[in-house]
This record gives sequence, C-alpha cells and structure tokens, in this order.
Amino acid sequence: MIAEHSQTEMPEIPKAEILCVGTELLLGEITNTNAQYLAQQLAHLGIPHYVQTVVGDNIRRIHELLATIIPRCQLLLVTGGLGPTPDDLTHEALARYFETPLVEYPDLWDDICRKYRQRGITASPSNRKQALLPQGSQVLTNRSGSAAGIIWSPRPGFTVMTFPGVPSEMQQMWQDVAVPYIYQQGWVQTILVSQVLRHWGIPESLLAERIGTLFESANPTVAPYAGQGEVRIRVTARAPNREAAQTLLQPMVAQIQAIGGEDYFGSDEDTLASVVGSLLRQRGHTLAVAESCTGGLLGQLITGIPGSSSYFLGGVLAYDNQVKVKVLGVSPEILDSCGAVSEETAIAMAEGVKNLLGSDWGLSITGIAGPGGGSPEKPVGLVWIGLASPQGVWAAKHRFNGQRGRESVRYFSAQTALDWLRRTLIRQERS
Amino acid sequence: MIAEHSQTEMPEIPKAEILCVGTELLLGEITNTNAQYLAQQLAHLGIPHYVQTVVGDNIRRIHELLATIIPRCQLLLVTGGLGPTPDDLTHEALARYFETPLVEYPDLWDDICRKYRQRGITASPSNRKQALLPQGSQVLTNRSGSAAGIIWSPRPGFTVMTFPGVPSEMQQMWQDVAVPYIYQQGWVQTILVSQVLRHWGIPESLLAERIGTLFESANPTVAPYAGQGEVRIRVTARAPNREAAQTLLQPMVAQIQAIGGEDYFGSDEDTLASVVGSLLRQRGHTLAVAESCTGGLLGQLITGIPGSSSYFLGGVLAYDNQVKVKVLGVSPEILDSCGAVSEETAIAMAEGVKNLLGSDWGLSITGIAGPGGGSPEKPVGLVWIGLASPQGVWAAKHRFNGQRGRESVRYFSAQTALDWLRRTLIRQERS
Repeated sequence: MIAEHSQTEMPEIPKAEILCVGTELLLGEITNTNAQYLAQQLAHLGIPHYVQTVVGDNIRRIHELLATIIPRCQLLLVTGGLGPTPDDLTHEALARYFETPLVEYPDLWDDICRKYRQRGITASPSNRKQALLPQGSQVLTNRSGSAAGIIWSPRPGFTVMTFPGVPSEMQQMWQDVAVPYIYQQGWVQTILVSQVLRHWGIPESLLAERIGTLFESANPTVAPYAGQGEVRIRVTARAPNREAAQTLLQPMVAQIQAIGGEDYFGSDEDTLASVVGSLLRQRGHTLAVAESCTGGLLGQLITGIPGSSSYFLGGVLAYDNQVKVKVLGVSPEILDSCGAVSEETAIAMAEGVKNLLGSDWGLSITGIAGPGGGSPEKPVGLVWIGLASPQGVWAAKHRFNGQRGRESVRYFSAQTALDWLRRTLIRQERS
Repeated sequence: MIAEHSQTEMPEIPKAEILCVGTELLLGEITNTNAQYLAQQLAHLGIPHYVQTVVGDNIRRIHELLATIIPRCQLLLVTGGLGPTPDDLTHEALARYFETPLVEYPDLWDDICRKYRQRGITASPSNRKQALLPQGSQVLTNRSGSAAGIIWSPRPGFTVMTFPGVPSEMQQMWQDVAVPYIYQQGWVQTILVSQVLRHWGIPESLLAERIGTLFESANPTVAPYAGQGEVRIRVTARAPNREAAQTLLQPMVAQIQAIGGEDYFGSDEDTLASVVGSLLRQRGHTLAVAESCTGGLLGQLITGIPGSSSYFLGGVLAYDNQVKVKVLGVSPEILDSCGAVSEETAIAMAEGVKNLLGSDWGLSITGIAGPGGGSPEKPVGLVWIGLASPQGVWAAKHRFNGQRGRESVRYFSAQTALDWLRRTLIRQERS
C-alpha cells in the first residue's frame, strides 16, 4: 500500500481563481490577455480554476468581490492595480479584507528608487506607495518594472499572488517566482497534455453525433469547438508526467481520427494550407493559383507557410475579366455565354494558370463575394472552384452564406479550394 | 423646472454585468474578445458595468454564479453555451435559476431546419435542443448561425440577454436586436461618440509629443493606441445625443488632423487599402500588383474593399523566379546579377505587371519574409517595393524587423506599399 500512503501525504491541490483589476478592462479599451495566459498556465499545471472575474479600480467593489471569491478558492491570482497612482488599490483592498496593516518594505523601496535612477528619474512620493505591502507578505519581485507583487498566505489554506497588469511583467514574474513557488508547495501533481484534431467539411453537430459517448470520457476528456467552417475536437489527458499523458491520449486520438476520416485534416498547428503543402512536397508536385473574387487570399494562405516556395510557383489575380482573357487565356466566348462565375470559366482559369506557370496543379476560384454583384441566378456567395491536375480538370459549385459578408465568402472559398486539393491528393495516393 | 421633471420621468439606467460561459476560456484556449466588445458597447451607450465573470460549461457552477451576479445587476449579458452539444447549458441554467420551464419555440425550430437545409444538411436531433428556450423569453434572432439567444425579463427590474460565443454572430445580434431594445427601454441617456484618427509612418512617441497637452482634455478625451505600425488617436466625447457629441468632437479632431499632416491617412473604418481605393476611383485610375514575398496579401487587402473591381485589375503572384521572367518579363540577367530582392527586380516587376495588365499604376513587392532565406547582405526583413506610374517608375528599400516573424514582414511590406501609393497619389494631386 505504498502508493496509497504516498498519495495521502501529497498536499491538497488548491482550487484557484483569477481576478483582473482595471477600469480599462471594463471600458473595453484592452483585451484581457492576462486572464488567458494565467488560465493556460493553471490548466497546464493541473491546478483547477472555475471562475475568472474582472473589476474596476474601485476599492469598495474590489473588497466586495474578495468577499465573494476568497471563500470559493485556496489560491487567488490577482493582476493589475499595483501602480503608483491613487486608483491602484489591489494591495490596499487585500490588506483591508484580511484586517492587516500595510507596512513599508525598505529593500523594496531601495529597489524602486534604483530602477527610477537607472531611467534618469527620481522616484516620486507617489512611488513610495508601491513599497507598502500587507504585513507578512513575501515580495514577488518585478525584474523590469517598479510594481512589485506579493505572495501571501494570510491564513492557513489560502494564498494570494498579485501581479502588475503589464502582460510582459506579469508573465516574467509568473515564470520567475510564482511557478517555482507552486512546485515547492507540491501543488503540481499532474499536468495536462492536449491534442486538437481539426476537421473541415463536416458540420459540428454531425461530427459530435458520431463521436457520441466518447464525449463522456473522463480522462482523457473530449470536447468540441467550432468556428469559421472548422470543427476542432480537443482531447486532453491529465497524468503525472508528459509520457503518461501521451499514453492516455493516443488511443483516444486514434479513435477520433478514425471517426473523422477524410474530414480530419490535421492536428494542433496544422492548417489546410500547411497540410496541402506537405502533401505536395511529399509528391514533388507544384501548384499555381488563379484567383478572382478571393483577390490573393488563396495565395496568401499558401505562402503563409514557411518553405512554400518549394511547391508554390505563383499565380494570377484575374480580378478584371480582361485579365482572365489576356493572361489566363479564358475565351471571351465563354465569358460572354457562361459568365465569369461559371463552371466553364473556373475550368479555363485552372487550366490557364497551370499552363502559363508550368505547374502540376492549377487551382482557381471565381465567385460573387458581395455585397454587390449578385442576381437571382447568381447570388452573393455563389463560387465556382476549378482544379486542374496532371490527370484532368474539374470544377465544383459552392454556395456559401452571403449574409456572413464579403470576408467570410472569400475565406470559405479559399479554404474549400485548399480542402478539395487536399482530398484529391490523398485519394490519388490511395488509388 | 420642466427639465428636472422630465429627468425624473426617465427610466432608471440599469447596472449591467457580463457573464461569459465556456470551458475554453478557463483553459485559456481563446481570448475573451466578447467581453471586450460588450464592454465597449456598454461604455458607448452610457450603461455602467462594474464586473465581468467567466465560468465553464458546468451547470452547477453557472447556477451558483447566477445567484451571486443577478442580485448585483439589472441587466445581464451572457455569451456562450447556446450550441447544440450537451455541454451548452446557458438557457438551462437560467431557466432553472428562475424556476421556469424550457419550452420549444416552433418558429425557431423551423428557422433552424431551414438554415441547415440551405447548407444542404438535415438538422439533427441534437439541434432540437437549440429551439428550447425559457418560457416567456423573446427570441434574439441569429441571422447566420443556428444558435438563437433570448431577451428575457423573468421578474420586474431584471433583464437577461444571451448571445452565442461566436464573436461575429454575437456582434450581429447585439447590433440588430439588443441595441434597439436597449434604446426602446429608455436606458440610453448619454452616449459616447468617438472618432479614431489613423496614422501610418510616424512613431507613437513622436506623434504623442506633438499632440502634447491635448491629452489632458476632459471632454472630449484624447488617447493614443499603437500597434502593427499604425498609430491611432481616439477622440471621445460624452453628451446627451450624437449631435451634441459631434459638436464637442469636431474641433479637437480638426486640430489633431492638422498635427498628423500626411501621416494621418483616415478615420475609424478607413484602411490604407480603402483610402488608396478612393483616391484611384476619384482619378479614374487603375492598379495592378506584382507580389513575390507577400504572396497575395497585397491583392487581398485591396480586394477586401467592396467595389475594388472598379480600379483593381488584378495581378501576378510571382513567387518563383521563373514566373517573374516568363509572366512579368523580368530579364534573367537582372535576376542573375542583382538578385530577386533588388531595386532592379522591383522596378521590372512593377513595370511588367503594369504593361501586362494595361493599368495606370503597377505596385510590386519583393523581399525576404523569413524565417529562412536571409544572408548578411540581404537579411530577413529586407524588402524592395516598386511603383510604376503614368509618370515614371521608382523603387524603395525597406528594412522591416525580421525578428517579428514572417507574417509581420509580409504585413508591413503590403501596408507600406499601399502607403507609398497613397502619398504619391496625394502629392500628384497637389502638384
């Protein structure tokens, strides 16, 4: 029973909360990236946290919130409100809540004066406030700025850590001091390891139904996220170390990959463009694009991948019909009889750019991105995608949601074109 | 005392809170931009809000937080937790808190089915959950997605509004339905009106020095924001209505525009691409682009502007050197002796695309975006921009910060190219 014994000796993992102080957050002037950063860090270290709160620079409201938050948690991370101005009130509110005096920390005051001198400034009386900390708290040193934080356990089983609102200073203090402290306390007993499985071309609800009861798995957990046409499934395992987590993770990842089939295109940082790039590179094939309504977005996604020059030759932005005719060789008769947004034009553009640039593959997009230019027969959102391959040339009609706006139609067009090329490359391999 | 009387008849402005639901926020997987957006909107409408909260997809914890939050406010804005999966629990938690049954809204179910049909999919049983709303609530229609929200006053003096977590859908629903509702209630008694003055090509510190004491103004306020090469100055006035706010705003805006001079390129939604577009349209001129390292980004920025087809003909993505030679007519000798990233190549590309497409202006970019491909003589971040005009052709050398990464070099290249064309068009007009 050694294992059990050693487990009972482990310190209890605290439940954490995050409190961000700053009126600028309430006015929406800045995005709360501090909460996101600390949330990621807590998740990784296996420290649970269930609530984040934002409050302005008002001592009564900070105090009221502390009264709500502190009973719910054993570790409170506070960002903001450590500056030299009268509306920086975090330490004052904490001291008042725990009925503890603020006292001057002489070493900290020396350090603040030294930092100001280095910048050629004399520390002002208002900076003296930054050297006042709740009695009994430990200084959480700020390497670059003047705002020090604290690590303070005002009563058994509760610890508060404070950080300045400036993200770079907060992150440095978190890594330098807070993380080692958390390990020292024995609070890091398991870590989280995640893999995100990315899908294109399947609605979230359909994929979720197929995954079904796997969503109920406790470790690893399985959770869906959708947005912008992509469905992501995150599989997250908790274990004492990375290897054990991977061992838990991999069978579940394999199961969900099998369910996703061809709709699954990659994991984590993979994008449709990066996956297409890998497939082309593996085959030693080259690609050229002909874009009308996307106006460069397809090329931009492809060339966003470092090293894309090994398979991407370039393309033609055939925005005006004359460019389709003169540069890509689309026949004026096709444009007259079928229109610029048609199967025939998409095919002629894909073949045209393949021939012009001498690539193995040609990918074309012609459509109506809106807001103007639509008609009953050819509404906003109608897009033809053409694909010229070493084996032949095809075109496919798509109807994207024009209501979502021009950028959305363009984005879906470019991603769908990449996805088509991806599936075609995979199927060719198989056949 | 009429004014006083009518003031006492005004409805009381509710205190608002924001609650964002989503485990992905607690795991730090996404940034909470919804809270920022709603915070800005509330500030604009003069509706006070003092606390924002984030909670995961857990019905017990959502319920506990509702018990804490609801007594503190009269208007609660909730985002997230409206999807079709079992962990989407927002409406269930609200219904449970107010002891109200969830009932099916048949029109909403029809609408959900219709939206799926349009995408060529049959709505699945799990989607039916999205048609269940607390009895007595009003549907907050989602124009694009299947997740509807509610506006619900379950008891006098308290209203809750729910929105999906997808930012574009949330914002559309806020503007379409929530804002008109808030006005109807008489909750908007003073508003904030802002104008953002946008600058390119001047460091923040220099512009801030020139603006000097204007930053101390109380109403309108003046505040700087910088990022991605652009410096924005926000001027904000608070007044009972838009006209009164504009009267306060305009003299300050005019002063700051005069200070910005040619570095000021536009206001609010203006972009370098939209301003260049307006200038070209005014002159009846056309533009073509030749892109190497930006791979389509320049074209994408230009064609992101609705109506750009009236002045943008298209372009060539000359990623591979052979495309520069074969399509744009850059001489192989230039490429051999000067290299692809050189004044000569930039000029030949700009002239080449202008001639090929028959445009008035040709704009070219050739550079080293990184992370690979740099050398001591031609480091990552070195970019040549070429500009062919009806009057002649020029090239300019830029050295962007390669340390900031590939996307940053590409972005600065494309924006700087547009800014150069903008200044050239303005100066031509003057001379």
